[in-house]
Amino acid sequence: MQRLPTLVARIANGVLDPSASPSIASRRAAAAFTVDGRHGFGPPAAQLAIRELRDAARRFGLGVAAIRDAGHLGMLAPYVEQLASKGLIGIAFSTSEALVHPAGGRLALLGTNPIAIAIAVKGEPFVLDMSTAAISAGEVIVHAERGTRLPEGRAIDAEGHPTLDPSAAMGGALSPFGGPKGYALGLGVELLVAALAGSELGTRVHGTLDVDKRSTKGDALIAIDPAALNAAGVEDRASEYLHELRSSPPAPGSAGILIPGDRMRAERARRMEAGILYPAGTWRRLLALGREEVRTDA
Amino acid sequence: MQRLPTLVARIANGVLDPSASPSIASRRAAAAFTVDGRHGFGPPAAQLAIRELRDAARRFGLGVAAIRDAGHLGMLAPYVEQLASKGLIGIAFSTSEALVHPAGGRLALLGTNPIAIAIAVKGEPFVLDMSTAAISAGEVIVHAERGTRLPEGRAIDAEGHPTLDPSAAMGGALSPFGGPKGYALGLGVELLVAALAGSELGTRVHGTLDVDKRSTKGDALIAIDPAALNAAGVEDRASEYLHELRSSPPAPGSAGILIPGDRMRAERARRMEAGILYPAGTWRRLLALGREEVRTDA
Repeated sequence: MQRLPTLVARIANGVLDPSASPSIASRRAAAAFTVDGRHGFGPPAAQLAIRELRDAARRFGLGVAAIRDAGHLGMLAPYVEQLASKGLIGIAFSTSEALVHPAGGRLALLGTNPIAIAIAVKGEPFVLDMSTAAISAGEVIVHAERGTRLPEGRAIDAEGHPTLDPSAAMGGALSPFGGPKGYALGLGVELLVAALAGSELGTRVHGTLDVDKRSTKGDALIAIDPAALNAAGVEDRASEYLHELRSSPPAPGSAGILIPGDRMRAERARRMEAGILYPAGTWRRLLALGREEVRTDA
Repeated sequence: MQRLPTLVARIANGVLDPSASPSIASRRAAAAFTVDGRHGFGPPAAQLAIRELRDAARRFGLGVAAIRDAGHLGMLAPYVEQLASKGLIGIAFSTSEALVHPAGGRLALLGTNPIAIAIAVKGEPFVLDMSTAAISAGEVIVHAERGTRLPEGRAIDAEGHPTLDPSAAMGGALSPFGGPKGYALGLGVELLVAALAGSELGTRVHGTLDVDKRSTKGDALIAIDPAALNAAGVEDRASEYLHELRSSPPAPGSAGILIPGDRMRAERARRMEAGILYPAGTWRRLLALGREEVRTDA
């Protein structure tokens, strides 16, 4: 919802085509293919990739899809979760506008480059979906609007000094999570996606935050059929292992051990029950957008 | 060299078979296969996987190999680098003995679970090889031997409190790098490798640090042929982008921006020229091992 005004402006500016149908652009090898998003929305392109990947994983053991010229996919979790719900392993990577500085650097030269992994486990699947930035640009904006300070280690100012001031961070860069290792991983995603999708790198990535440039980011999805490799039983063992983790003693001051996907599922259940709360600003912008659109139609 | 005494003891104890030849254990799907290490050394099993993966990537666009019942592979970098030297993308994951605590937990329940990614770039390839622990067990031992303190955030003591004392860390657990995100990633590797290789999880992983248990860890390698997906030109653009990163302004107090693989290559070149320095303790243990072996032969 936060992104809807941007999407509407992108359509109005002709850089996002709401009627585009994604297509398989090339399939030079049996288990690898490219999806052309045709400058339309991201989710239909990802759904096409997932349908084809399921087939490739069943036939060849695994498959890879590269997506280019598509809009923002949104959270990666639902896509890899769909693969895991069919007993497949799902792995996804995306690039995004350069907002993150390299370790030791002070310019924003890398995307927030998320990684998602989903694996079928007896009971609920394991679903990891994490950005390689220490904080999201959206969270920095929320801190700025609320007048609160950032947690430590999340961002630098324009001179490259660590900052807790959200306004200074907006003029500087987000930090990679976990220092040099998180930077290395985010850079790995940046190069991996570009190598697969032929998409752009660094500051030449556009089209998800702005309203006037075509999308030049990329996405890559891998699906693997574990049944092609190994005998059954791992789903049960994995479930026992996750139980062992959850019930292991917490460190002093810790509320307990979480498994990636737990919080997302709890939040989803809560919202299905109680409804979805939007920040007042987002809601007002949506109402204004509705009125504008009505005027445009009239 | 540091591990050679352990390997010799493992052979003497009959849990490592120095004459084992790895074999392809199963190939139920065209592009996916399992390597049975037959309780021999790790590197021959990985080399077999790489030969087969090159073929799978050329034929199908990508391939995945799961390795089980093999010894420690050593650094993952050389394996993925071999794939990148043939123009392929190489991705590798391994599990290891549980040394790392979950975020918020205090028991060692995860391996140091390294991730490696290599991508061909014009000039030298991009080679990332990182553990998901904040520090290696070997580095903690070096700090203990030298009587130096650990950097902050690397380990906890037996009660779960962060510690700078290497002896306390050896009785506690290593921390995941980057807090909850690094933990989530390490857990993803733990589950991914087990799901592919059918290997063990958490504290049931044995056989690389001990001298009396068979190896129950696993490894997974993925090779992707980018030529199957997308037109040429990315290798040049990637090279320009890495140049842009390297030459971008450093943050205050920073010596500059490194690209994963730079340090490894510089160190390799230095050692090829000047020879390899071993810590005195390692060298003495190797000399003692040689004398022991001579006595055994006599």
